Amino acid sequence: MRLVTYLNDGSWRAGAIIDGHVVDAERALVAAGRDSIGTAPTMRALLDVYGADLDAVASAIAGTPTGSAADIGPLNEITLGPVVADPEKVLCIGLNYGDHVAETGRSLPQYPDVFTKFPGTLIGANDAIGGLDVTEQLDFEGELAIVIGREAKNVSADDATSVIAGVSILNDITARDLQYRGTQWVVGKSVDGTTPVGPDLVTLDEVGDVQALDISTRVNGAVKQHSNTRHMIFPVAEIIAYLTRTITLKPGDIIATGTPDGIGAKRTPPEWLRSGDVVEVELQNVGTLRSVVA
Amino acid sequence: MRLVTYLNDGSWRAGAIIDGHVVDAERALVAAGRDSIGTAPTMRALLDVYGADLDAVASAIAGTPTGSAADIGPLNEITLGPVVADPEKVLCIGLNYGDHVAETGRSLPQYPDVFTKFPGTLIGANDAIGGLDVTEQLDFEGELAIVIGREAKNVSADDATSVIAGVSILNDITARDLQYRGTQWVVGKSVDGTTPVGPDLVTLDEVGDVQALDISTRVNGAVKQHSNTRHMIFPVAEIIAYLTRTITLKPGDIIATGTPDGIGAKRTPPEWLRSGDVVEVELQNVGTLRSVVA
Repeated sequence: MRLVTYLNDGSWRAGAIIDGHVVDAERALVAAGRDSIGTAPTMRALLDVYGADLDAVASAIAGTPTGSAADIGPLNEITLGPVVADPEKVLCIGLNYGDHVAETGRSLPQYPDVFTKFPGTLIGANDAIGGLDVTEQLDFEGELAIVIGREAKNVSADDATSVIAGVSILNDITARDLQYRGTQWVVGKSVDGTTPVGPDLVTLDEVGDVQALDISTRVNGAVKQHSNTRHMIFPVAEIIAYLTRTITLKPGDIIATGTPDGIGAKRTPPEWLRSGDVVEVELQNVGTLRSVVA
Repeated sequence: MRLVTYLNDGSWRAGAIIDGHVVDAERALVAAGRDSIGTAPTMRALLDVYGADLDAVASAIAGTPTGSAADIGPLNEITLGPVVADPEKVLCIGLNYGDHVAETGRSLPQYPDVFTKFPGTLIGANDAIGGLDVTEQLDFEGELAIVIGREAKNVSADDATSVIAGVSILNDITARDLQYRGTQWVVGKSVDGTTPVGPDLVTLDEVGDVQALDISTRVNGAVKQHSNTRHMIFPVAEIIAYLTRTITLKPGDIIATGTPDGIGAKRTPPEWLRSGDVVEVELQNVGTLRSVVA
């Protein structure tokens, strides 16, 4: 199943893609006689209620007739938002591919290096990447993103899959000049409206092994990053186990799992994103997140 | 006015303290003929609706008769939560007092050094400080906290006061061993249930000049930190101006403004918090945040 956050009358709602159409999750669920996800039927609300039972959502969606009230229309006529627009947390893992660690000149991390992006930085697949008004060093970082499906504390690596709702793509856009103004990266990582995440949330049955996916980033068609998620230093299951030792994960939380080598900052000369550039992050079995720089 | 988050039937609600009683904000507002703050009447909801007009709240609260439905009862019989239990963001400024920077051996920051704590780490003034199950180096950091009252982007230092709802106290409890496992501090700063913030949110008319307040931290009665907010490297107004150049602040966001020197990690020998320790952070004109270590 492919879930999306889409725009409806100025609000974000959760939907799913079926036969090229967006089907509204709340309407499909209620029509199928299932529990409502509430008056603000966002992706976070959907995962709060159904994160542990996404099969129920798939079943309700599959039973939606074309042309019913739940059928919102063709995907290409609909505005998508960040897969989760209002997560409690966006947890990001830095330095998680060996070749990227090497290009930064750092030593290999002994533990996942965790930082954050604030929700206000998230944008959807149809939004332009902002930030050029405040930085001269706008850079890309293509990443596999995990979306959490149920509350999780002290989850072992063996059980980690059970708390994952699905996989998405996150372009960890970074203002390099702001990132290194102090010891901590938050400001460079959280510029308003700079971080695309989407286009959709793909459940694990469609993704397969999350540690065996090709990932690449292209700028204006030229490949800048190319790797495979098998090269992660800390695989997804270990990241979840590590985080949940101290931090409770909530439905809708996003975990960005790190970027391979090839970022603009480490090229000779450095290559910064400019207005009009097209950045695509492609993740095998998941899709392509294509964004234009504003 | 002193606003609190208090526990009611398992949920957090916003209230105010008047004559030693907690008055429910939603009930007082509705009784006064003002707009409701919604079905989940939390502090964040209160600030969303009334953050730009806290005088209306003060007026409704002042008109609440003792014994009315809005009068919840004596403060000392009521459980307080974090002043804001579900902020979108907790922004923290590191290294913001010169004597603290000196004790860490770092050079003076050129810009505010911004990090974060996740909402799940916040606890109220009546909660015990957790964390001893995952760290052997639990440390205190007494800080002045700002609570944001209205959405804010590109606010000048001159206008910064207008976006502040009030002042509280935050004990930036830190697991030092976890803080320095990587380049980023998030894990050591966000252990679930370790960060007291409260007991109340005090509006600026009762606080006076936020840059002229004595602040001290005591452990089991012994003074460990003592300074004055005039010694901040980046005063509150400059912090707000800096943050809002790139990050939109929202009602309910908390900004912890840094800690003075005297933290446990830099004592000889280092002094870590132990079960049963009593930590008090006292901030002039605001109050005392007293917590017990679990």
